[in-house]
Amino acid sequence: MQISGESVVVTGGAGFIGSHIVNALVARGNRVTVIDNLTTGYREFIDTSPSVRFLEGDLLDQTFLDKSFAGVKFVFHLAANADIKDGLSHPRKDVEQNIVVTQNVLEAMRANGVKNIAFSSTGSVYGEPEIFPTPETCPFPVQTSLYATSKVSAEGLLSSYAGGYGFKAWIFRFVSMLGPRYTHGHVIDFWRKLRRDPTRLAVLGDGKQKKSYCHVEDCVSAIFTTIDKADKDDVNIYNIGRPDTLEVNESIRIISKTLGVTPTLEYSGGSRGWVGDSPMIMLDTTKLRALGWAPKYSLEDSIVATLKFLNDNAALVEKTR
Amino acid sequence: MQISGESVVVTGGAGFIGSHIVNALVARGNRVTVIDNLTTGYREFIDTSPSVRFLEGDLLDQTFLDKSFAGVKFVFHLAANADIKDGLSHPRKDVEQNIVVTQNVLEAMRANGVKNIAFSSTGSVYGEPEIFPTPETCPFPVQTSLYATSKVSAEGLLSSYAGGYGFKAWIFRFVSMLGPRYTHGHVIDFWRKLRRDPTRLAVLGDGKQKKSYCHVEDCVSAIFTTIDKADKDDVNIYNIGRPDTLEVNESIRIISKTLGVTPTLEYSGGSRGWVGDSPMIMLDTTKLRALGWAPKYSLEDSIVATLKFLNDNAALVEKTR
Repeated sequence: MQISGESVVVTGGAGFIGSHIVNALVARGNRVTVIDNLTTGYREFIDTSPSVRFLEGDLLDQTFLDKSFAGVKFVFHLAANADIKDGLSHPRKDVEQNIVVTQNVLEAMRANGVKNIAFSSTGSVYGEPEIFPTPETCPFPVQTSLYATSKVSAEGLLSSYAGGYGFKAWIFRFVSMLGPRYTHGHVIDFWRKLRRDPTRLAVLGDGKQKKSYCHVEDCVSAIFTTIDKADKDDVNIYNIGRPDTLEVNESIRIISKTLGVTPTLEYSGGSRGWVGDSPMIMLDTTKLRALGWAPKYSLEDSIVATLKFLNDNAALVEKTR
Repeated sequence: MQISGESVVVTGGAGFIGSHIVNALVARGNRVTVIDNLTTGYREFIDTSPSVRFLEGDLLDQTFLDKSFAGVKFVFHLAANADIKDGLSHPRKDVEQNIVVTQNVLEAMRANGVKNIAFSSTGSVYGEPEIFPTPETCPFPVQTSLYATSKVSAEGLLSSYAGGYGFKAWIFRFVSMLGPRYTHGHVIDFWRKLRRDPTRLAVLGDGKQKKSYCHVEDCVSAIFTTIDKADKDDVNIYNIGRPDTLEVNESIRIISKTLGVTPTLEYSGGSRGWVGDSPMIMLDTTKLRALGWAPKYSLEDSIVATLKFLNDNAALVEKTR
């Protein structure tokens, strides 16, 4: 679908991946409305181009949403509670911020006649898969986290609205993304700990979990490749990730080398870092690659780029919010 | 798991399937708390045994729920918006009544240290499957209705709570149930229309949709067979249905014959009765049958039993609510 030049909304446009999408949209000639409540997003990440309008507000406020979507052609819904690890300490948060909010976005679209939406889902929806790499059509998974449950649910809302109200939906199941403006996940956790004490590092689990990562620039190019080229179906579901994995221990090795530290590792033990952690994530991206997309950044490059961002922006990301 | 004699809660215990579960629990020596707001349930369906306590109230009222679950060992969560067909006319209803309410139930369990829950999900979670009969582990489906989306989401909440808080969950994916106290679905719709005008019958779709049905007594015996025998996993997911299907046209033939009418059929056309209708539903019950369960009622017997109930209770089910 061609959306260059159109008016678009990016929810979570002050966040890590959302802000990169905004940059790409500006470069493609779009007028962009960024909606963000700045609880995890940063004002500093928002594109300062005159074609960007920033509306600070909460997606639980339906009146605000309904007003913000006037004249819009396409919505990128990136805003979410992205904290998978601590879901069990606030079990209603994922339902409210990822399910109810997604329905609010869909209702604001309906109220304004907006029909097209791209959505950031997660490879966590596969639970603990038995097939690697895991394709979009793997066996019906059993959910293991409130975060993934909320994303599966939001996916279902998108596909139901697509069938019921003539929407077109692009659903992207992400691995963990890395790169500039990364502010959440194991790399920043390790970076923070090592800044405080470079001699030791507490590691959740046994360090042998194998995860897949991807550079945010590769993620954004995958999203636009798909929207540009794959629009014949009402519901378009694509994994986004790299074909390789990195053991947590190997990730620690790269981080330690890059930061020039040699910590003693202290494992909490067990094959999972937390309840609902998946010991192995590797997505099958055959469907995405068939559109001509390929990632440009290696896993190691992605981690190094992330650490460079964190070191260069330590004051910002360490600011009490 | 042995639960005979224990104190149990049945949400939706005044509804079609819930009220039969209450009867079975009473027969098994349980003390039963029925919770129902009587929006679709009937006071007349509630077991009148002294071991049954009825609490009229709404599952959106967390304080009421928290109080009701004191001292309970097992929860049967049957209360739901069961109206799949009209989901698009009130799109927030499924999210509120099937997702938020399920989390309220789980939170009331957590608040009271209740760890065991059985849940009525649906074969609709398979969307439009490509494999028949459809096993529990069929390829990851794309959701086609808000109702099924809400049930997938509730399933995910149960499995996340199981992993996260040590719950044990039994999830049952039902085909359409029939039999005494049936008050919702195509048989009552046709019965109502034919009572008003036995000479003609409006049919949604082309009448060629093939659906699977099951008698509510067979459903209840499947649920207790599973809870009694299958409790080694934290999350136990079982299809419940018969191995055969009935074309809507064949169902109409049985209904017409039983009621002694010969209506002219007026089809709305198309292979689906409504947006999100699945042209074919047939679940694989190999997993359930391996526990020794088998249905006792044929499809035709189930429809005839349903019509007998409706004819015998016409004043009740036609009462303005």
